[in-house]
Amino acid sequence: MTAKVALIMGSKSDWETMRPATEIMSELGVEHHVEVVSAHRTPDKLMEFADQAIARGFEVIIAGAGGAAHLPGMVAAKTRLPVLGVPVQSRALSGVDSLLSIAQMPKGIAVGTLAIGSAGAFNAGLLACQILALQDAALASKLDAFRVKQTQDVLDNPDPRDA
Amino acid sequence: MTAKVALIMGSKSDWETMRPATEIMSELGVEHHVEVVSAHRTPDKLMEFADQAIARGFEVIIAGAGGAAHLPGMVAAKTRLPVLGVPVQSRALSGVDSLLSIAQMPKGIAVGTLAIGSAGAFNAGLLACQILALQDAALASKLDAFRVKQTQDVLDNPDPRDA
Amino acid sequence: MTAKVALIMGSKSDWETMRPATEIMSELGVEHHVEVVSAHRTPDKLMEFADQAIARGFEVIIAGAGGAAHLPGMVAAKTRLPVLGVPVQSRALSGVDSLLSIAQMPKGIAVGTLAIGSAGAFNAGLLACQILALQDAALASKLDAFRVKQTQDVLDNPDPRDA
Amino acid sequence: MTAKVALIMGSKSDWETMRPATEIMSELGVEHHVEVVSAHRTPDKLMEFADQAIARGFEVIIAGAGGAAHLPGMVAAKTRLPVLGVPVQSRALSGVDSLLSIAQMPKGIAVGTLAIGSAGAFNAGLLACQILALQDAALASKLDAFRVKQTQDVLDNPDPRDA
Amino acid sequence: MTAKVALIMGSKSDWETMRPATEIMSELGVEHHVEVVSAHRTPDKLMEFADQAIARGFEVIIAGAGGAAHLPGMVAAKTRLPVLGVPVQSRALSGVDSLLSIAQMPKGIAVGTLAIGSAGAFNAGLLACQILALQDAALASKLDAFRVKQTQDVLDNPDPRDA
Amino acid sequence: MTAKVALIMGSKSDWETMRPATEIMSELGVEHHVEVVSAHRTPDKLMEFADQAIARGFEVIIAGAGGAAHLPGMVAAKTRLPVLGVPVQSRALSGVDSLLSIAQMPKGIAVGTLAIGSAGAFNAGLLACQILALQDAALASKLDAFRVKQTQDVLDNPDPRDA
Amino acid sequence: MTAKVALIMGSKSDWETMRPATEIMSELGVEHHVEVVSAHRTPDKLMEFADQAIARGFEVIIAGAGGAAHLPGMVAAKTRLPVLGVPVQSRALSGVDSLLSIAQMPKGIAVGTLAIGSAGAFNAGLLACQILALQDAALASKLDAFRVKQTQDVLDNPDPRDA
Amino acid sequence: MTAKVALIMGSKSDWETMRPATEIMSELGVEHHVEVVSAHRTPDKLMEFADQAIARGFEVIIAGAGGAAHLPGMVAAKTRLPVLGVPVQSRALSGVDSLLSIAQMPKGIAVGTLAIGSAGAFNAGLLACQILALQDAALASKLDAFRVKQTQDVLDNPDPRDA
Repeated sequence: MTAKVALIMGSKSDWETMRPATEIMSELGVEHHVEVVSAHRTPDKLMEFADQAIARGFEVIIAGAGGAAHLPGMVAAKTRLPVLGVPVQSRALSGVDSLLSIAQMPKGIAVGTLAIGSAGAFNAGLLACQILALQDAALASKLDAFRVKQTQDVLDNPDPRDA
Repeated sequence: MTAKVALIMGSKSDWETMRPATEIMSELGVEHHVEVVSAHRTPDKLMEFADQAIARGFEVIIAGAGGAAHLPGMVAAKTRLPVLGVPVQSRALSGVDSLLSIAQMPKGIAVGTLAIGSAGAFNAGLLACQILALQDAALASKLDAFRVKQTQDVLDNPDPRDA
Repeated sequence: MTAKVALIMGSKSDWETMRPATEIMSELGVEHHVEVVSAHRTPDKLMEFADQAIARGFEVIIAGAGGAAHLPGMVAAKTRLPVLGVPVQSRALSGVDSLLSIAQMPKGIAVGTLAIGSAGAFNAGLLACQILALQDAALASKLDAFRVKQTQDVLDNPDPRDA
Repeated sequence: MTAKVALIMGSKSDWETMRPATEIMSELGVEHHVEVVSAHRTPDKLMEFADQAIARGFEVIIAGAGGAAHLPGMVAAKTRLPVLGVPVQSRALSGVDSLLSIAQMPKGIAVGTLAIGSAGAFNAGLLACQILALQDAALASKLDAFRVKQTQDVLDNPDPRDA
Repeated sequence: MTAKVALIMGSKSDWETMRPATEIMSELGVEHHVEVVSAHRTPDKLMEFADQAIARGFEVIIAGAGGAAHLPGMVAAKTRLPVLGVPVQSRALSGVDSLLSIAQMPKGIAVGTLAIGSAGAFNAGLLACQILALQDAALASKLDAFRVKQTQDVLDNPDPRDA
Repeated sequence: MTAKVALIMGSKSDWETMRPATEIMSELGVEHHVEVVSAHRTPDKLMEFADQAIARGFEVIIAGAGGAAHLPGMVAAKTRLPVLGVPVQSRALSGVDSLLSIAQMPKGIAVGTLAIGSAGAFNAGLLACQILALQDAALASKLDAFRVKQTQDVLDNPDPRDA
Repeated sequence: MTAKVALIMGSKSDWETMRPATEIMSELGVEHHVEVVSAHRTPDKLMEFADQAIARGFEVIIAGAGGAAHLPGMVAAKTRLPVLGVPVQSRALSGVDSLLSIAQMPKGIAVGTLAIGSAGAFNAGLLACQILALQDAALASKLDAFRVKQTQDVLDNPDPRDA
Repeated sequence: MTAKVALIMGSKSDWETMRPATEIMSELGVEHHVEVVSAHRTPDKLMEFADQAIARGFEVIIAGAGGAAHLPGMVAAKTRLPVLGVPVQSRALSGVDSLLSIAQMPKGIAVGTLAIGSAGAFNAGLLACQILALQDAALASKLDAFRVKQTQDVLDNPDPRDA
């Protein structure tokens, strides 16, 4: 089975933040490809990656980056596939720079931005599954089950004082 | 043809901001439903709307709201459909509050957040089309054409000093 | 004696922040109920909780949440009881997102917002007592005594250089 | 009938912002007293006002101020009555300074903070009514009716494109 | 010799931040009085302290506080003596709240605000000495010597790579 | 009579903001000198001005600047006289840059910072008078009278609804 | 004579902001090329432009962009020429997003960032001239003269109260 | 060989941040001079340093400073050489104050600002080399090689999951 989601990130050091995206996709059985693509250090690879994304069978691209985070927006500039951006928490500014660099795209090129950090990465993986589930009833069922379980876990532990 | 995108907003006053979302969807021939659903003033309608979204045939939900913007996140809490959030520019804080209220969702419930204001609204419409185009080759072609034209318009006007 | 204050929070991990609210209420002899209610993971429970709050005898609701903190505002949307919101300090943004998500409510649905973190939680418990004391002279006396003691403790230790 | 709510503000220029607090209280039939009390220009009046607030029959105090907004916190320091603070939108910083000066109270003295500007003022009036309604069934009914009407107004106007 | 500078702070926990103010004053031989005065927990003491400040012989007041920092502004509201404010670094917001609560005073009541944290505390002590030196030639000489030495220390160590 | 206060500013365009400083000083009979001294465009003049400030009889220096506002700190680096800084409201960032550039001075060189904009300028003039009044009983009396009148004006107009 | 400076911007609407860069270059006799190059709408042109920049004889590139401003960083990723970035003032966030998107580049790809808005644009032009003047004595002389005149203009108008 | 780049910083404590600037310059064989020059503690040295910079053969000046960071702007005010500013991460505000104090220079005096912290320092060294390479073909070749290697390192390690 071909990977339908490409998960790229600007640096190896982003992996710890981005890993949860792969966890939820694996849990829901969604094949995904993981690769470092740096907007600033490998711009040609970025362009080539985006150019070939459709031909390679990807349907959703998740891009994580920090600081002056240009990766999600530049990929979106080069492909019509939906691009989801994850702002990696930066050292000095805690990801405010990453968030604004990803979310504040101009009219005409869209990036769906998630929360700063690993929660955002998890949700990027989840949202990619939600998008794929529009044409995959089995995945939709798995998603429903995941959501039911997530809810039930909270319902089953109503008292925060319990260990 | 049934509307595949639901465009909801927290208040009638958000319409001016959100209108560009409808413009791009209309341009690309994507049917959409427009409605005011207020998380705070009509919470039951919000719950019912989200509960029935799949049954009504929606595939993507765009939700715009400002200030303590709870609409996108609460809809996402109630449906597995992809939810795109548009932070409306608020009076005092220029939409920083809206952006953070929409983007900073916790692990487990995802909202794809666009830019503050009407550029974000346009891009929400565009991203919804990109998602739908995954299973609609004709729409994908229209999107490609839109993107080519958008690029060409810039290429055709390289000198910013021209009137 | 029935609990007059409901203390809810979006996640078990919020308990450490919220505990001081229970400490001051216990100190002043105000019965309170503690429960995890997640706006995003258990939206139906949230709605049901808020719907039944008056019938269950609650008079004040304290809600703590972090990040895109929708719990206080959504509870307030569903009940006429006074709702006090506590912004939990978030990892990346230190609770700025939580504060704005709770405080910046639109006209028509009010949340009384306290400070970020455990000081705010303590003060939420205290403010709940102040509200209940309007119709409970004994509680008012206890509050007065608490305030006198709090003042005296500072007066008794005027030199910050003392151990 | 005696005023149960005191609405104070730091300056005459805050009146335009604070007026909506009186509108909702008037609509719900709650008597209120309106007065300028400046923490910085009339500190003795502030102390005296807060000292006498209970004796004068007030049950809730709403305090609006902008910039380095000390009025709500200083009143709260002097009375056990619930104090609701409204951050007035300041010229340079749009009320961020006001919001933080009011909300970030230390442990031990609580202020229930509303949104920046007139929406916050309206909601302060509303929250004062919600507090008073705990011991006033007629007011509770009026509040319920206000809320039903507010919801119905949105339900009756679902299409934002209507004039 | 009477203390000419009063150094007050809102809480014992502010002492670590404020200590450098006493160090420079001690180094320059300026007598100073140190005391905890809490705007929120001991408002009457604050008023009395400020009322008596001139009679007690103080000429400059340094006030340190964090979060919704009302101490400097309230003291300034009650005395014509120059008041210098030191924003203590707060836990969640790193002193941004403290800085704005102290610096953004309205027209008519002035507080000279220093930097957030212990550098600001040191400089408050230094600025107090600069003010007192206007009428104390011996202190002016000591200040000049301190400044010369401070400069020389940097000049003597031009290479940052030296241990 | 010699000017005891020097009021300098980085640009002619700062005059509208800084004028209130001269108004209060004129009202209280404090002679002052007004001059444009630009840290960036006239650095040598800045150095010379600060070097000669004591010899020219100045006792307090008020410096207003906007954006990357270096004037107050650089003057303070060159003179032992107390320096008061006024952050001018900048176009893009509303004076946040000015405020931080002036207030966040390192340990060893102090600037007493006032509020952003004309309120801060007024208060700088007022604080200069408070400093001078330490050795000028007549000025102290005028200051007291100013403060009494300022208080009385508020007391005389307690109802914000009056025209 | 060939243009040694390329002045590019992301959109025609940036021209009003960027024009001052051309004014100072024209005043100092530095030939420059002006063109719209959009990172997001014309990514291929951006890549080609940067690839050919050295061959076309450019020595410095000035790039202005707003919001999620990726143009300066992406050009810098593709050429060894010095790139100067100008953050255009954005509608909602006043250029804070632009500033962070341009300045917060990761280690390895540098952009020299100027101030937000037209002052930054002017200074980008000026800094480009300063760089070129390192190998152009005549330009250096013109720069010196410009600086002398700029200083003299301030010195000649010391009184901000003059019309 | 004479140093062509002067690397100055406001304090010895900035060395850890600034060291990477020297590393890249050493790697590329660019001689540089390193020295502590404090705008606030050694203003005369700053002026003298800037006055003599051209005569000493410097062609680019890199200046690092934190908090109210005036060093880069003041050096730029005194020399026509290109000045690159590095915002050192400050304790309370994480370098936001440093960034704004350096970047927000007024029209007429330019500083090319890099990112907050050591990434910015590295890039300042790199940008200095890019500027010098305009007239040094050998350095240009080294830069090209550095860039090729930087790119290749990323290309050679595409999988972030590898150790």
